[in-house]
Amino acid sequence: MKLIRFGKTGQEKPGVELPDGKRIDTSAFGEDYNEQFFTNNGIARLAEWLKSNQSTCPAVDASERLGAPLARPSKIICIGLNYVDHAKETNAAIPTEPIVFFKATTAMCGPFDSVVIPKNSVKTDWEVELAVVIGKKATYVEEKDANDYIAGYMLHNDYSERAFQLERNGQWVKGKSCDTFAPLGPVLATPDEIKDIHNVRLWLSLNGKVLQDGNTSNLIFKIPFLISYLSQFMTLLPGDIISTGTPAGVGLGQKPEPFYVKPGDIIELGIDGLGTSKQVAVAYK
Amino acid sequence: MKLIRFGKTGQEKPGVELPDGKRIDTSAFGEDYNEQFFTNNGIARLAEWLKSNQSTCPAVDASERLGAPLARPSKIICIGLNYVDHAKETNAAIPTEPIVFFKATTAMCGPFDSVVIPKNSVKTDWEVELAVVIGKKATYVEEKDANDYIAGYMLHNDYSERAFQLERNGQWVKGKSCDTFAPLGPVLATPDEIKDIHNVRLWLSLNGKVLQDGNTSNLIFKIPFLISYLSQFMTLLPGDIISTGTPAGVGLGQKPEPFYVKPGDIIELGIDGLGTSKQVAVAYK
Repeated sequence: MKLIRFGKTGQEKPGVELPDGKRIDTSAFGEDYNEQFFTNNGIARLAEWLKSNQSTCPAVDASERLGAPLARPSKIICIGLNYVDHAKETNAAIPTEPIVFFKATTAMCGPFDSVVIPKNSVKTDWEVELAVVIGKKATYVEEKDANDYIAGYMLHNDYSERAFQLERNGQWVKGKSCDTFAPLGPVLATPDEIKDIHNVRLWLSLNGKVLQDGNTSNLIFKIPFLISYLSQFMTLLPGDIISTGTPAGVGLGQKPEPFYVKPGDIIELGIDGLGTSKQVAVAYK
Repeated sequence: MKLIRFGKTGQEKPGVELPDGKRIDTSAFGEDYNEQFFTNNGIARLAEWLKSNQSTCPAVDASERLGAPLARPSKIICIGLNYVDHAKETNAAIPTEPIVFFKATTAMCGPFDSVVIPKNSVKTDWEVELAVVIGKKATYVEEKDANDYIAGYMLHNDYSERAFQLERNGQWVKGKSCDTFAPLGPVLATPDEIKDIHNVRLWLSLNGKVLQDGNTSNLIFKIPFLISYLSQFMTLLPGDIISTGTPAGVGLGQKPEPFYVKPGDIIELGIDGLGTSKQVAVAYK
């Protein structure tokens, strides 16, 4: 199943994208895709409900704005430098265990919303990433059991202001948390939708030129390991997002000189099976 | 006004601590102290409501467990090394601008709950801190206006696992986010309750011996500056928590050798005007 949310910012309604690409409004099911929904086995209940109710769900017009395909969770956890080629392009050491940082959930937005270049930003950068959504509360999970804790997968552009992140003293969160820095979706796909999540292509283009072109087969730390690892340090709640890192090709890694997002730039990205998203960059007003 | 929440974990009810120290149940007001409450001017509305309804509010028995005095917000932002003496004791440079990190909101607990030493922890440490609660949505706030964005203040023990934080590769969040690592309260005091928030004593004792004894007059970056600063990097939502840093005397800074929390240890802490809290350390089971 592929979950979507649509409508105006802050007033999104839940829906489903059907195998033929049509979108339907599942508001009549009565639940948003939030922590409570995932906690109470919402995906299975929704699938069951659709068996009898799908035909009466209104169609979602193709012109409707898409929001992030889930409501704001308790946290967005990101993994740094989880592809060897990206670690190398940023002159960072290959991590011996996962590098973990948080991104403010206030950064969330829809997959086709504009990305707002923050005030005083000169280094707004892109990072196509596979994001994992947690399906049930996870504390001290063993790697062999970790797949049971996955609700699904999403496309994520982990926008990063490199000067804020790296030149403003201390921790990375400062450069990761600006509004609109986490476009998510278009869909949250349940695990059965993806044949092998550790062998999907992910790519990103800037103004039509492909700059990132990787494959999750190159993840240094795989998803079950990450879930187990993180759950040793904190409790993961249903709906929590783990963004698994980006392959090479970010602005910071460009040769001979890094370059970054300018107003009017068009950023498109995609992951096999999870759809594509597109952001136009605008200056903060 | 001093807000409290009481009752079993996850089922807390809202209340108020009166000037004489008695606690009353304000459930009849019909709102928990969450983002929506702060957004909709809840503190002023509650104060108005109490004028007519205080006498009919049930008393809260002194034996009742206290929870954190607000519901889980979108984020807990912490400021690192914001007292000169603490920066020195940890052999860190004095920050030239604030060091910012996040703490998972899943770490929140009540002020008298046990602190659980995580599995595989050998360096669970304490940090008495003044926490600021945001009262309205804040984006690009100017320092001169920042006081308008404060809902109130709380006592916070920013527990930190130093090996997870400093020896496990990368960002600090790993050592800050374990369950029970954020005891908050007993109260959320509105700004009018504190004469000068930049001149209050904060202290912490381990097994009766005072190890931290500081004053917010020694904050390197003051509260209005912090609110303004953070709001340049992310949107602060009503209910969001900013923990302003800890003075000297943490376990990591002890001479001749650092020492840390052991099962059975009693940690007590307090801030003038914001009450005291107490945690007994237990091992994870």
